[in-house]
Amino acid sequence: MAETGTQPSEEAKKALFAALSARFGDRFSQNQTLREQHANTLTWVKVQAPDAIIFAETTEEVSEVVTLCAEARVPVIPFGTGTSLEGHLNAPFGGVSLDLSRMNKVLAVHEADLDCVVEPGVTRKALNEHLRDTGLFFPVDPGADASLGGMAATRASGTNAVRYGTMGDLVLGLTAVLADGSIVTTGGRARKSAAGYDLTHLLIGSEGTLGIITSLTLRLYGTPETILSGVCAFETIEGACNATITALQMGLPLARIELADEVQIRACNAYSHLDLPERPTLFLEFHGSKAGTREQVESFAAIARDEGGGELQWAERPEDRNKLWQARHDAYWAARGLKPGTELIATDVCVPISALAACVAETRQDIERLGLLAPIVGHVGDGNFHVLPLIDPADTEERGRVQEFLNRLVERALAAEGTCTGEHGIGQGKINYLAAEHGLGVNVMIAIKKALDPLNILNPGKIFAIP
Amino acid sequence: MAETGTQPSEEAKKALFAALSARFGDRFSQNQTLREQHANTLTWVKVQAPDAIIFAETTEEVSEVVTLCAEARVPVIPFGTGTSLEGHLNAPFGGVSLDLSRMNKVLAVHEADLDCVVEPGVTRKALNEHLRDTGLFFPVDPGADASLGGMAATRASGTNAVRYGTMGDLVLGLTAVLADGSIVTTGGRARKSAAGYDLTHLLIGSEGTLGIITSLTLRLYGTPETILSGVCAFETIEGACNATITALQMGLPLARIELADEVQIRACNAYSHLDLPERPTLFLEFHGSKAGTREQVESFAAIARDEGGGELQWAERPEDRNKLWQARHDAYWAARGLKPGTELIATDVCVPISALAACVAETRQDIERLGLLAPIVGHVGDGNFHVLPLIDPADTEERGRVQEFLNRLVERALAAEGTCTGEHGIGQGKINYLAAEHGLGVNVMIAIKKALDPLNILNPGKIFAIP
Repeated sequence: MAETGTQPSEEAKKALFAALSARFGDRFSQNQTLREQHANTLTWVKVQAPDAIIFAETTEEVSEVVTLCAEARVPVIPFGTGTSLEGHLNAPFGGVSLDLSRMNKVLAVHEADLDCVVEPGVTRKALNEHLRDTGLFFPVDPGADASLGGMAATRASGTNAVRYGTMGDLVLGLTAVLADGSIVTTGGRARKSAAGYDLTHLLIGSEGTLGIITSLTLRLYGTPETILSGVCAFETIEGACNATITALQMGLPLARIELADEVQIRACNAYSHLDLPERPTLFLEFHGSKAGTREQVESFAAIARDEGGGELQWAERPEDRNKLWQARHDAYWAARGLKPGTELIATDVCVPISALAACVAETRQDIERLGLLAPIVGHVGDGNFHVLPLIDPADTEERGRVQEFLNRLVERALAAEGTCTGEHGIGQGKINYLAAEHGLGVNVMIAIKKALDPLNILNPGKIFAIP
Repeated sequence: MAETGTQPSEEAKKALFAALSARFGDRFSQNQTLREQHANTLTWVKVQAPDAIIFAETTEEVSEVVTLCAEARVPVIPFGTGTSLEGHLNAPFGGVSLDLSRMNKVLAVHEADLDCVVEPGVTRKALNEHLRDTGLFFPVDPGADASLGGMAATRASGTNAVRYGTMGDLVLGLTAVLADGSIVTTGGRARKSAAGYDLTHLLIGSEGTLGIITSLTLRLYGTPETILSGVCAFETIEGACNATITALQMGLPLARIELADEVQIRACNAYSHLDLPERPTLFLEFHGSKAGTREQVESFAAIARDEGGGELQWAERPEDRNKLWQARHDAYWAARGLKPGTELIATDVCVPISALAACVAETRQDIERLGLLAPIVGHVGDGNFHVLPLIDPADTEERGRVQEFLNRLVERALAAEGTCTGEHGIGQGKINYLAAEHGLGVNVMIAIKKALDPLNILNPGKIFAIP
């Protein structure tokens, strides 16, 4: 079970790949470029390419691949769109990347029940496109147009989570292929259930280490009658955070409330040719009835004034709303543009909201002290924020400072009873942080992993280091 | 690991009880009455009393008891208020009932973060009493004044779940004692986390079989500015269900939407001296701003008219609201009063909302055909409904008809892609139904149980039959 024990013999591997090639034809590949594209590509975590890729098309095929790989002791790494950030897709022990992107059918939409059943390769944008004429939508929006299977596997969330929840809240049930090739269905289509252990939530966020998700039943929401967007600049980060806390305490049903700090706004002004005041800024969205959303805007404007906020600009027409939110929409690319030739690292932590202002302010001080360039953007309604350090790939000394910064960021979040990741997951990049956060709990996770995947076939080397 | 293997020797038991008695003094008891009070008391599941009771006061004491009991191979059954319905508290293999009701402190209330930390013996009413001056409340309301530890262990929900969620949605983190006596902390105080396996949700609904919950971090909500209650009678069950579906699809933020069928209304009229029309009736509650709740009432009244609903009566002042909802509040006792000298069985299923009308109507037909007396009440916003058959304890033939009825009720729910229990849990009473619902999934649950409790010490004989 130790991680090194997962290494199969070269003969076993060769025989397996021959069998898979015969079985899957041109849906099996060992092309070098394809292999690298199926490993980690988005962060500074080193690329470790798999040995081969299979494009699966059915649950039964996934089961077949897992069964054959388990017999040969070859790891299987499920792959959706490749947009994860912590090395989830790397193959430190080699193995097969099981590409699920061709499993991209919406299997059913139950309009009356506000749910749908999808294959794992359906992306969130494709789903919302499919739903367009139904008056329903799926709210989880992590930025990237990720696959819904991958979003479930990494417990993704994003800008709408403050109102609609995360993948943990919106997945009603799953079909998954386990390490022995068996196909299990968890949850169901009922809105709630008290029937036995919650295997759905166990699989959500398990990053492909316990099972490979091959279908998902998702909650949907009715498209709001009215959507209003707003933008408000504050004198201080504290003011912006305090306005957020007050709004949440009052029960104001904010659909989105996003913070960008002054460095991020500066980046956005440059990138998108805007002239926003270079101050900490909240981007808001209100969903509801015509009267209800107006009332929300007024309530929030009053709160903002009390916290040193400027005028709350707001808009209703889609084109005007897009304009107001353009800086937020462009945040990632604007940050990348701050210093050409650098790499961008995207990391995140999440803290109780009361700790957010101090946590962000201290993070900003750390950035200055360490001489880094790093915008901050946050889903502040959840206490979740991202820091985006830009680093010169050749500068090892800077790399050391960034590592120190990341360590201190997580320590600060944990000291505030927060978590080392609100939505990016553990992958390879945060294994030590998970141990710091959960202590003995990690032993429980490993006990479950050993019980369900005794050969350590499914995405080994992620979440924890098995002793 | 087989269930019979959990039986310890009589000498081991005797030595254990002597040690526990010496350690816990008068907080250890083998009094016969107390033992029976700590077993199942609320349903027709046969009482199986534990051998002894311990009143624990700290997490460390719970750990100590579990460690000693594990050494002697004696089961431990956690106990809160004893209000569970499916035999969760029975001791089919004997053992110690670990009464947590004295662990009843609210450890912290974090007003700015909208969360609190409580010991497991705090009841939901005691918590809300404690919170009264903060402007916050904890919304889960399963009817009985259950302990929050027990509510988490059984994944309880109730009337507010359509708006605020179930225990699965509102527990941010837990401390639990595992079968080896180790103390783990899961989750945290951040609103969301993508850090590793979701052990919090694994423990929620595990009915004391994986760990004993010794503290909980709970989400709180701001008390709404305005609460309006409403009541509306419908020509048909279908009309009432369709009005519910339409309201949910429109995104109307209903706080509560409860159905009582004509038999239940008849019982309430008799019990509470009311003169409600004896028709399927919806009881509603709207939370929000003054203008927002008015708007919701008007929207719902229009929907109800389209579905054959009568006038929507509504009220705002607490005393008027209580009057409108009195029939719903008294439903359980009114049902018991329908036929004195009988026992009441409370069972529940949950189905996708689109299946609810047909499911309830067929259930009503089954009740008539089998000659049973059984009101129906439901949390229809979740598709969850309760049936309350009244049975003569001495009439074994009737018991057979009730069993047939219960089997058909679950079969119907599963055929509609629903669940055998929305909120009561599995306990001893629904073990076969869980197997029918989850098939291979039950094997996964048992594998996890074996990994975390290899001696089968924690609440054995519940949720599944270990082969």
